[in-house]
Amino acid sequence: MALIVQKFGGTSVADADRIRNVARIITETYRRGHSLVVVLSAQGDTTDDLIAKAAEINPKASKREMDMLLSTGEQISCSLCAMAIEAMGYPVVSLTGWQAGFKTNSVYSCARIKSVRTERIMAELDKKKIVIITGFQGINKYGDVTTLGRGGSDTSAVALAASLNADLCQIYTDVDGVYTADPRCVKGARKLQEITYDEMLELATLGAQVLHNRSVEMAKRYNVNLEVLSSFSGQPGTKVKEVAKNMEKPYVSGVAKDKHIARLALIGLPDKPGTAFRLFSTLARHKINVDIILQSIGRGETKDISFTVDLDDMERAQELLGEMQSTLGFDHIDVTDDIAKVSIVGAGMIDNPGVAALMFEALYNAGINIHMISTSEIKVSVLVDKCDADTSVQVIHDRFYEEFGNI
Amino acid sequence: MALIVQKFGGTSVADADRIRNVARIITETYRRGHSLVVVLSAQGDTTDDLIAKAAEINPKASKREMDMLLSTGEQISCSLCAMAIEAMGYPVVSLTGWQAGFKTNSVYSCARIKSVRTERIMAELDKKKIVIITGFQGINKYGDVTTLGRGGSDTSAVALAASLNADLCQIYTDVDGVYTADPRCVKGARKLQEITYDEMLELATLGAQVLHNRSVEMAKRYNVNLEVLSSFSGQPGTKVKEVAKNMEKPYVSGVAKDKHIARLALIGLPDKPGTAFRLFSTLARHKINVDIILQSIGRGETKDISFTVDLDDMERAQELLGEMQSTLGFDHIDVTDDIAKVSIVGAGMIDNPGVAALMFEALYNAGINIHMISTSEIKVSVLVDKCDADTSVQVIHDRFYEEFGNI
Repeated sequence: MALIVQKFGGTSVADADRIRNVARIITETYRRGHSLVVVLSAQGDTTDDLIAKAAEINPKASKREMDMLLSTGEQISCSLCAMAIEAMGYPVVSLTGWQAGFKTNSVYSCARIKSVRTERIMAELDKKKIVIITGFQGINKYGDVTTLGRGGSDTSAVALAASLNADLCQIYTDVDGVYTADPRCVKGARKLQEITYDEMLELATLGAQVLHNRSVEMAKRYNVNLEVLSSFSGQPGTKVKEVAKNMEKPYVSGVAKDKHIARLALIGLPDKPGTAFRLFSTLARHKINVDIILQSIGRGETKDISFTVDLDDMERAQELLGEMQSTLGFDHIDVTDDIAKVSIVGAGMIDNPGVAALMFEALYNAGINIHMISTSEIKVSVLVDKCDADTSVQVIHDRFYEEFGNI
Repeated sequence: MALIVQKFGGTSVADADRIRNVARIITETYRRGHSLVVVLSAQGDTTDDLIAKAAEINPKASKREMDMLLSTGEQISCSLCAMAIEAMGYPVVSLTGWQAGFKTNSVYSCARIKSVRTERIMAELDKKKIVIITGFQGINKYGDVTTLGRGGSDTSAVALAASLNADLCQIYTDVDGVYTADPRCVKGARKLQEITYDEMLELATLGAQVLHNRSVEMAKRYNVNLEVLSSFSGQPGTKVKEVAKNMEKPYVSGVAKDKHIARLALIGLPDKPGTAFRLFSTLARHKINVDIILQSIGRGETKDISFTVDLDDMERAQELLGEMQSTLGFDHIDVTDDIAKVSIVGAGMIDNPGVAALMFEALYNAGINIHMISTSEIKVSVLVDKCDADTSVQVIHDRFYEEFGNI
């Protein structure tokens, strides 16, 4: 009999019927004799509703109070789910982040988990209880409530699975696995049975939005067996593990897009050492994550540096750069959010340099202009106009299917 | 400079505007140099909404999970209020029941406070912070969330005032003090400047609904200076203390009614010892509070016993009595909820036996029939038909005013 961690997202617990559905999945697993710890997100739009309430009162509320507010969302979904399981006649207990032993650092609104003290959970499991735990939250050393930020509940689930040495961590969501491309947009997109942590990491970062990269990173570090599956379909999902078994894997396991980005370009920087350092250390100090960076080869005395950031950080990045204009000595800034990132990911890519060329060919044939290119060992990303993003994914997906008969 | 505890009820924090109003009252007190601890209830209908959500999923949910669910209401109002105070530029921190050190017993849904460990609160006060605390809740020895039941937030506030040795505990509500009768129903009702704990206790028990009796009992035991006042009017309220100063107090300080009751009568009980004991100990064991008890003088071999209970307990009491019919040997049960209790309360009553007669006279003149009478040292209660309740309060109030020129 195994110890299993199951995590259900906000859409899976959005209303009473869906909570009952989740309770059915949980109790079926329990009836098969497994020990079961369940992590839940807040119901549907609860978090957004709470954020709106706060914004009405104080748009610049402290993050400490925001965390105090937002952490109630999971407490509500967990107690309701426990009630649904009670109604089915199974032993159950719900626990908040602090009750479940989640200790975090003190960076409110995007805290990092430091440890999970599992005594209480173990005691409840020993009593044969199903344990329902609030995702997304913990407490810091002051005993104050913290939240983990985006993708926090996935991270909670993986941290639990690692701390409890669980046999499996199942992430239930509204899609039934990891696809070679977004099945809602791309014809021919196919569900993967297996994928490696690294590929999943690239896909998560690239906007596939199935699993948050923090949770995948943690799963890789602690070798947690992950499975992504749907709470609605009842079908097997995609397994995420260190080495995928399939020896005849195609080179590319997925095509992803991310429209929620902006590109900033500093034009006419003096071509001297230290510029990039000063620029990016300032952005880092202000917690602005930079993704693709492209520096032009110097033209005489000057060079250009372009980079992409999350769309939410665009304005702040622009402000910061404005303040640095005299220090850095650039001519002007060019900013656009009419941009999207399209990427291919695959562990097999590293041995097949032709893969990138195939991607560029597909885009060329479709008349799509590439603005920037960035590559890593297992991915190739390009920036295209936002209006070209969906077509780009489709034509790349088609091209690889045509070439390899599979993707 | 004083240490003040302020408590605001659900209507006082029902929406963003009202929260801002409460934040203004709090910060004005703080600006006058006082140390300030604030207890809040959940916003408006939040608790009812959460109860409805639970009922949809499991109408017989465990009380432990209900407490887990309901305790989120105060956490939301407290964090929002803290944000409003932040927006005004004052230092503030919100704390949950467990963070504020509220330890309770384990009777979920109506837990009793065992102690308040005030270290965290004191530390925040030392940092000159306004401390906002969730009313109505604490944790038990297992670290599980408990709620205090009806009137819980008032009790939280008084317990805090007692534990912190506060100079004053101000209960802000939607009425601006304790009245000689409900000012929404009774013409001529007048606000009392002062009232004793005992009078307040009788009034609370009798359905005046300004303060819950648990909180008044605790205030009396720990000699906490209470003040009841409105969060809307800005006027001075009513002070509740051991001995009211006013030497020329009228005999009666208030007239109250309670329509939320039922009367049960056991007809034809054998007139032998032990009947009342067996009857009421059984009800007590099932946590049914009995209020007025009236036993008829034995007629030959049999007697009748009538008593009142809270309307919510009527059906359960009837069931229990049905099961005891053969043991107790009564003939039949007569049950009605078409009944109301009307009472006068006053510490001066004990020395003035004519007071009760004056009340009966007022009712007689209005043609209102009295079904049962019960008296204590500082109150006289009568049962009347539910439809006569409002008129009863008015005519009694009028009669005392006429007699004493004051009430």
